[in-house]
Formats: sequence, C-alpha cells, structure tokens
Amino acid sequence: MKDKMQRILSSQTPKHIGEEILLKGWIKKRRDHGKLVFLDLFDRSGIVQIVVNESVSKDAYSIAQELRPEFVVEVVGKVNKRPERAVNKNLLTGEVEIEVTSINILSKAQTLPFDMGAESLNLELPTLLDNRSLTLRHPKIAAIFKVQNVVIDAFRHFMQQNDFFEFQSPLIIPAVPEGGAEVFEVNYFNHKVYLAQSPQLYKQILVGAFERVFTVTKIFRAEPSVTTRHLAEVIVMDAEMGFIESYKDVEKMAADAINFILKEVNDKCKNELEMYKQKIPKVSKEIPSLKLREAQEIIFKRTGRDNRKEKDLSPEDEKEICKWAVEEKESELVFISHYPTKSRPFYTYPDDQNPEFNQGFDLLGRGIEWLTGGRRISDYETLIKHAKEWGIDQKDIKLYLDAFKYGMPAEGGFSFGTERIVMNILGLGNIREASIFPRDMERVDERFSVTD
Amino acid sequence: MKDKMQRILSSQTPKHIGEEILLKGWIKKRRDHGKLVFLDLFDRSGIVQIVVNESVSKDAYSIAQELRPEFVVEVVGKVNKRPERAVNKNLLTGEVEIEVTSINILSKAQTLPFDMGAESLNLELPTLLDNRSLTLRHPKIAAIFKVQNVVIDAFRHFMQQNDFFEFQSPLIIPAVPEGGAEVFEVNYFNHKVYLAQSPQLYKQILVGAFERVFTVTKIFRAEPSVTTRHLAEVIVMDAEMGFIESYKDVEKMAADAINFILKEVNDKCKNELEMYKQKIPKVSKEIPSLKLREAQEIIFKRTGRDNRKEKDLSPEDEKEICKWAVEEKESELVFISHYPTKSRPFYTYPDDQNPEFNQGFDLLGRGIEWLTGGRRISDYETLIKHAKEWGIDQKDIKLYLDAFKYGMPAEGGFSFGTERIVMNILGLGNIREASIFPRDMERVDERFSVTD
Repeated sequence: MKDKMQRILSSQTPKHIGEEILLKGWIKKRRDHGKLVFLDLFDRSGIVQIVVNESVSKDAYSIAQELRPEFVVEVVGKVNKRPERAVNKNLLTGEVEIEVTSINILSKAQTLPFDMGAESLNLELPTLLDNRSLTLRHPKIAAIFKVQNVVIDAFRHFMQQNDFFEFQSPLIIPAVPEGGAEVFEVNYFNHKVYLAQSPQLYKQILVGAFERVFTVTKIFRAEPSVTTRHLAEVIVMDAEMGFIESYKDVEKMAADAINFILKEVNDKCKNELEMYKQKIPKVSKEIPSLKLREAQEIIFKRTGRDNRKEKDLSPEDEKEICKWAVEEKESELVFISHYPTKSRPFYTYPDDQNPEFNQGFDLLGRGIEWLTGGRRISDYETLIKHAKEWGIDQKDIKLYLDAFKYGMPAEGGFSFGTERIVMNILGLGNIREASIFPRDMERVDERFSVTD
Repeated sequence: MKDKMQRILSSQTPKHIGEEILLKGWIKKRRDHGKLVFLDLFDRSGIVQIVVNESVSKDAYSIAQELRPEFVVEVVGKVNKRPERAVNKNLLTGEVEIEVTSINILSKAQTLPFDMGAESLNLELPTLLDNRSLTLRHPKIAAIFKVQNVVIDAFRHFMQQNDFFEFQSPLIIPAVPEGGAEVFEVNYFNHKVYLAQSPQLYKQILVGAFERVFTVTKIFRAEPSVTTRHLAEVIVMDAEMGFIESYKDVEKMAADAINFILKEVNDKCKNELEMYKQKIPKVSKEIPSLKLREAQEIIFKRTGRDNRKEKDLSPEDEKEICKWAVEEKESELVFISHYPTKSRPFYTYPDDQNPEFNQGFDLLGRGIEWLTGGRRISDYETLIKHAKEWGIDQKDIKLYLDAFKYGMPAEGGFSFGTERIVMNILGLGNIREASIFPRDMERVDERFSVTD
C-alpha cells in the first residue's frame, strides 16, 4: 500500500486531517511515555510530531524501540487534530500529530557524539566544526544559513531592481595590484597566479560595458591571523556604478541596499531572529556619515584616546564610533569616509578639496566593518600616474587600464562582507559560525595536524 | 540649467516627446550628413539616436566634430517623434530622436584598435580576448552574458520553487578524492591544499541538513588541453536531493530544470537569440534516455563504428547519438546512463540489476555534454568499501563520511556546465566566448609569454 502512496511534506499535514498519509524524514527527538512514543520527524519543510502507540500497531511500536535521533524513516499514519491543551504554538504543524500505523527504517544513524536535541548546541568552536556534517543539522545552526540566503537574495533583488547587471567574477588572477602579502599563490600549469582578493578590477572594467554591475562571489585572504572576524575564504557582495556625481551617490546606493537587505531579513527571518534573541540593527532615516578625522575627533572627546593622526580606526575605535552613532544618531550603522589617500588602493579617488584624503568609505555596523566602497579614479592618465606612485607594474593591469583608455564615466562602488553581516545580525561570537565550511589558518574542513 | 536636470535613461525617451531632457552615455556610432551629425548614444537601458544640427546649436555641432565611438558624454536635447519613414523598428527607442541643444564630453576614448560599429566583431579569438575590456562593449558580445544571466537566474528560481536550499560551496579543499591529475594546487599557509573540482561532496553532506540543496559556483580544472570546449575556471549549477526512489527521479528533476531554463531563455532573450540566428534546442515532451550500451549499439548500427565496449562516448559518438535523438525522437537533448561502475567516482551508485554499470548519467545537448548526474551511494558501509576500492584515504573524506554515518536517505543530484549551455544555445564556436574573462592553459587575462 505504501508503494502507491505519494509522499507529502510535514508542513502539509494540517491540510490532511483525518487522512492516512506517507511521510519521510529524519527522527529528531524522542520522548517515551509508557506505551506511547512521541517522535519529532524532520523533512525539508519542517517538523511534525508523530506518535507510535502500541495499541495501534505492535509492529510499528516494536520498530520505534530502535529509533534514535538522525535515523531516516518513512512513516504511514493518520493525521489527527491535537486536543486543545496539546497544541504546540511554536510549531507550524503544532495543531496536529500523526498516529503511526507503520514505520520503515531507511537509514540508521550511529550514536551521536553529543546531544542534538537541546535548543542550543553548547559546543566549543573546534567541536562544532570538527563535526560540521552533523552540527549543520541543528535547527539553530541551519538558521544561520537561512539568514545568509535571505541576505544574498535580497542583495541580488535590490541590485537587479536598480538595473545592475550580474556577472561571475574570475577567481584566478594574474597579478596582485592591491598588495601582495595577503594573497594565495596557485601553481597554474607551471605559471604563478593568484586567488582573487576582490572582484574590484573586473567590476570596474565592466562599468564600461554595462554601466552598472554586481556580483556575489568568493574572495580569498591569506591573512596570517586567527581573529574572530577573519576568514580565508569569504563571500562578498559587490556592486559598481557609472555616471555618479560624487561618492555620495555611491554611499546612498549602499545605504539603500543595506536597508533593503535588513528589511528582508526582518520580514523573512522572524523565527531565526527569535532563536538568537536578536533584532535587526536600528537604522535612522539617513545613516550618519563622518569623515575619518571627524570620527577621530569625536572619539578623542568621548574617551580621551588621541588617534587623530592615525590612518584608520582601530577595532576599539570602530566600537566607540558605533556607540556614538547609536547614542547621538539612533543608528547602529555609520559611514566613515576620507581616509588618507596613501593608505588606500591606487584606484581610490582623492578628494578634490583636499587630495591628501580620498573619497573611499567604510560602513560600520555594531562595531565592525560591514562594507568598503568609494569613488574611483576614472581618468586614464591619472590612473596611470597613481599606479606608478603605488609601485604597480602597468603591464600587470593592462586589461584594467584599457577600460579607462576607451571612455569611462565617473564611477564608484562598494563591497559587502556577507559573513560579517550575518554574524552581526545574529550576534554570533565568531565569524566561523557564519561560514558553512569555514577556512582559516588552522583549518580546511579538518584542523591541520602539526605534520601536515 | 543642466545641473538641475535629472538624468533620464535612453529607454525612457519615448515617454518624453516634446520635452527637454538630459541623457548620459557612450557614443557608439556616428553618421555625418553635412550639417547634421547622427550619433547612437548607449546607456544601461539601451540605445537612442541623437541628432546634432548646426542650425540648432553651433556649440554642440562644434563639439560633435570631436566625438568618436566610446566617448562618454552628457547631452541635453529635445525628444522629437521621428517621421514615419525614419522610424527604426529594430530599436526600442526607434520612434524618437533627440535634437541636441548642448553636449559635454565627460571622458574621451583613444582611437579604437578595430571597428566596433559592425553588427558582428569579426576578430580572431586571441584579439577578441586580448582586448576584452573593449570587446565586451560590443552588443553581440554583451548579449552572451545577458543569456548567461537568464540561464543562472532561471536555474536559481527553478530550484527555489522546488524547495532546494541555496548554499555557497567552499572552493579551497583539503584533498582530491575525485582524482588528482586535473587539480590546481594552492600554497595555503605552507600547507598543500587544492581548488575545488566540484561542489560534489559538500552538496551531498548538506542533503543531511536540508534534504534538497543547490549552488551556483566556480570549479577549477587543470586539464592540460586546449580544446574548444574546456576552460580552467568554470561556472557550474549544482543540485542534490534526498528521498529519491531511483536515479529516474534525479533525471526527471534535471529534465524539468533544463526545460524551465530553456523556456526562460526563449521568453527573455528574443533579441539575443535573433542576433545569433539561433533557436533554443528542441525538446520532446520527454527527453529520450538511453543506457550507454544501448547508445553504443545504435551508433554501431548507424555508422558501423564499433565502440560497444568503450567506457564512455567519444566526442564523435556524442554528436552521432544527438543526431539520432533529433531524427528519431525529435529532441536535441538526450540522457545517457549506466556507465561502467569503475569509470565513475567512488560515490556513484551501482545498478541493482547489474552492478558492473552504475546509475550515473549525462545529458547531451547538440553534440556535447551539458550535465552530469546520478544516484549516489548513501549507505555508510558501502561507501567506505567503495572508497577503499577506489584507493581513497578515509581520513581525507572524514567530514563527508560523517554525513552518511548519521542517517542519510537515498539521494542523487546533477551538475550543469553553464558556459557549455550558453555556448550551445547561441551556437558559439569556442567555449572561451561564453566566459566573461576566460582562463585556460595559455591565458589568465593576458596570454602567458614564453618567459613567464
């Protein structure tokens, strides 16, 4: 009989009250009550409670004795409305339960190395990652990647709505014009090439062809540091646009993008935000925007820390200026612009009034950098002059320079760090938790052993 | 005055007849008719014709003398309805033209190395790629990546509609269980790691967490061959699904996906298909499906070529069986399944009736492989046994094996080669044309010089 039944998903069960149905999925939790066994059955649509009653089916009850978390089963049963007092309001299918008439084990699971049934997995990070294939099955871990999906999808939709053309940026690059220390080298048919640190040069080239472009892509950073906010393989969401009047147009587009993303997360990830007891960051109507020197002055006045001649904000400063933005501007996000020209890549546009500082900017959220962006130099001769001053070999960036040789409007763009946004929205303690299979100095799936 | 005007896009001009407007874009073509200069102005929305008439503005006319293709300009002018005989039906804005009152050059272009105004760029491939920043600006080249976008977006939408969960697959991998010859090695903090050849193991792991998953990602192949259909960096569209009854469920999902993709291309890329004088491949209601040995038998009967004991189809055989499918089944697509078990990766599911052959399959389209897929082994013990037989070190795939240790349903999946699909839909002669910045043995942006 089962052979002829069509599988339905757990989320559909409330529409089949009184009917006999076939479900397939993973056992998540079991609770024994004498002759009754209650099991949570999980499939791609969610969870439904199934009840195995010895008096309904002796066979099913006998099989149920064997079932443990992560066993894969198919189950035939009748959908019953739960009595009022037993309705579970936290579950989409909480008004029903399945009275099981037969169970078939499709795949057994070995004994789990830790309890997967608790609301939170209280594991140390190495254990969490050493057992990634299993820990990703925990609803609170899976929720992180649901949020990631919504962030990425929202970015794509926003950019498409604003006429940005999607492209797939190359990841093998011939040279390292943005600085060589933090780059991975690849043996490429006996040539030395590198893994892309950003899609920067390619997205700028493509402004010449499509005016507005975006990409969601991986980048690679060989930073030899093990902080809670750096990964070796990162998902960035990048955009670049032509015909800007000033860097303010780029800042505005970035602000609109992040507002759209946060709104989507708020609308589509209610459960996930609740699991982490988080709200999306508060954003004032206009995200406050400070020049670096203004930010440093504010920090000096608030804390007495005199970093007014530094070329960047320290992690401590980033936290402080975010605190200021919340207190004074009711915004958990803040733009910082006008960094010293020499401290940024060669293509960043120096400010017309004061060329010592440029029109690059960062977006800080809840104390760390979410985005970097700015206006770029679009004049061919200036670009060549800068490349020289920055010590870059022109022949390493011929393709890039070509784009400016043949007509390029004033342009700029920005790059979001996807994992950082997700980490910050959910209040995760370590960025590794926001990467599905994180890579860092010490780990590519498994931790490197000393002899590797 | 211009300062206060809001820029509009060329595509909006037909809605502003009689009004004075501001446009910004690239000059594409110029035609001189005495005191009149006709120019095609391009922006992200398309092309509109602008007319500079000496009797309307001497200044504009004088600036227009300087304008050449790829100059970037801003133009103020009046939108005029064209006389009936001058309407250009091939242009979205063909019923109007802009009578220019002022022009401002925003960026000059050096003299182009070849004519960009012709309907097709008749360049040799190396020239096309050496000048990629420029050639991507040609409408017929840009069209290729419009089609690519529609293919990728359609894939994403189809998978999302079918409850597949999107993930971002890691590209740095610790070992090479699928065979080591064709893999790029990366120096990773002094450890030896590799660039992913496929998202295979990760998507299988994630079936355990999400039941159905998909990813659009890059893969890397170090094949030391320069054919017209191989790239070193490729975009794949991958999916994997649990709770299948047989490999036929996977084949069906792949068939539905490609049908959806082709329909979207047909609906959204009418201009692009017309530019290349192509139609989407003809697909019969059900895509024909042959076992390898059946296909070889057909080829033997049709051509006398006896490859009935080969473990795969040669390129010539692939073309022949596609010819058969068109002639006998009215389908330009055909599935080939049941390859010799030993010729496929260790995870491929051997057929229950005849375990010498497995339940892997390829989808061929217009003579080449578009997709590879199949059912996988989901039983932990069998997987370990196979890994051993295939000479794979278990500790290299611990994370992967874990997924099967803790409960895994029968599952399978597939992987589309994006560039091949686009190449084939548009009838391109070389797959490099279907990659925005193609990488191969001889080129990463620039061709390698002998001394590199």
